Amino acid sequence: MRRNDPVPTRDRILDAAQRLFEAQGYNATGVAEILRESGANSGSLYHFFGSKEDLLVAVLRRHVERLDQDILGPAAGQSEDAVERVLALFDGYRRSLRASDFRSGCPVGDLALEVADVSPAAQEQVAKYFDDWCDGVRGWLEASGNCLPPNTDPARTARLLLTVVQGALMQGRALRSVAPFDECVDQLRVLLQWRSSGGRRTKRRRRR
Amino acid sequence: MRRNDPVPTRDRILDAAQRLFEAQGYNATGVAEILRESGANSGSLYHFFGSKEDLLVAVLRRHVERLDQDILGPAAGQSEDAVERVLALFDGYRRSLRASDFRSGCPVGDLALEVADVSPAAQEQVAKYFDDWCDGVRGWLEASGNCLPPNTDPARTARLLLTVVQGALMQGRALRSVAPFDECVDQLRVLLQWRSSGGRRTKRRRRR
Repeated sequence: MRRNDPVPTRDRILDAAQRLFEAQGYNATGVAEILRESGANSGSLYHFFGSKEDLLVAVLRRHVERLDQDILGPAAGQSEDAVERVLALFDGYRRSLRASDFRSGCPVGDLALEVADVSPAAQEQVAKYFDDWCDGVRGWLEASGNCLPPNTDPARTARLLLTVVQGALMQGRALRSVAPFDECVDQLRVLLQWRSSGGRRTKRRRRR
Repeated sequence: MRRNDPVPTRDRILDAAQRLFEAQGYNATGVAEILRESGANSGSLYHFFGSKEDLLVAVLRRHVERLDQDILGPAAGQSEDAVERVLALFDGYRRSLRASDFRSGCPVGDLALEVADVSPAAQEQVAKYFDDWCDGVRGWLEASGNCLPPNTDPARTARLLLTVVQGALMQGRALRSVAPFDECVDQLRVLLQWRSSGGRRTKRRRRR
């Protein structure tokens, strides 16, 4: 760590790598670029991370560790109600998609395909991220009791919700539009029999 | 066209480009590689296609033209029943995912993200492919009458089904597993109240 530097070198390297991987992908990002962005030297990088692949795994592991704080927690903080939590979660992805000018949606989903072949350790972190996401949402659904139609399994519903998020983000990025996202959310609300007040939806629509 | 060549040069170039784009992506594929694979010369390629981008658009346009023949038709041919058609369609993607060793699922979906920034004309073909897919499935759902729960819009259901396919293929590729795919199909069947005989499902399970 450099003297008087408020951010430890390891974190600066992780922050820079995360930003660059998100902006341009893993393969397109060179170690030299990460060093330049982070202001770290090559010795530090290889001291903390044995390789670019190890750095990728560390970036993904940090996403896993921060899933609650960054993604699930803010949605859960909106309401005690599972339906409102899920809608807030979807709304967060929708806002990220727009804020990134349709270039990004879910930092782990964006990297998932590219790194599947690169590294089994990276793949493991992606799987853990998705599983933890599903576990979190399953917990909301279970805690709310009767928010699902009869015979509807909370764990499978959570997986379906993740799948819809990822599929909608993909189409949203490809088509530079939030329309597929909105159509799917509306349709899910019908199928899951979530006929809430519509207050949130009006709010969401106004933000367009 | 070379004399006695059964496949016209333009098609050989398109076939090679399609194979290479699918196997390694658009950006990673060089024109020289397409020429080598197709056995065409550079003059022919630039005669038929003004640029690599034009070639990409032509590949995507061919996918659009062949959507019925390659994807929707085979599923529709399985049954007159919309539910069975949709399940056959999903099963086709599932088989492609496995056959490609989890590297590919939907040729257009695989390219969609990579080319979104490359070319508005390519993006337009991707949008058309997705829209035609949804229109086709909507047609099945409408023709079958009562295959959807009350108040369920066929167009939005078709978009949701496309979204689930794309999200499930993404997870399937990332995790090298058909499990997310199967969980989502099972859950969709419950939500759409598709409680058919289970014959197809047993068959699908056996093929694992």
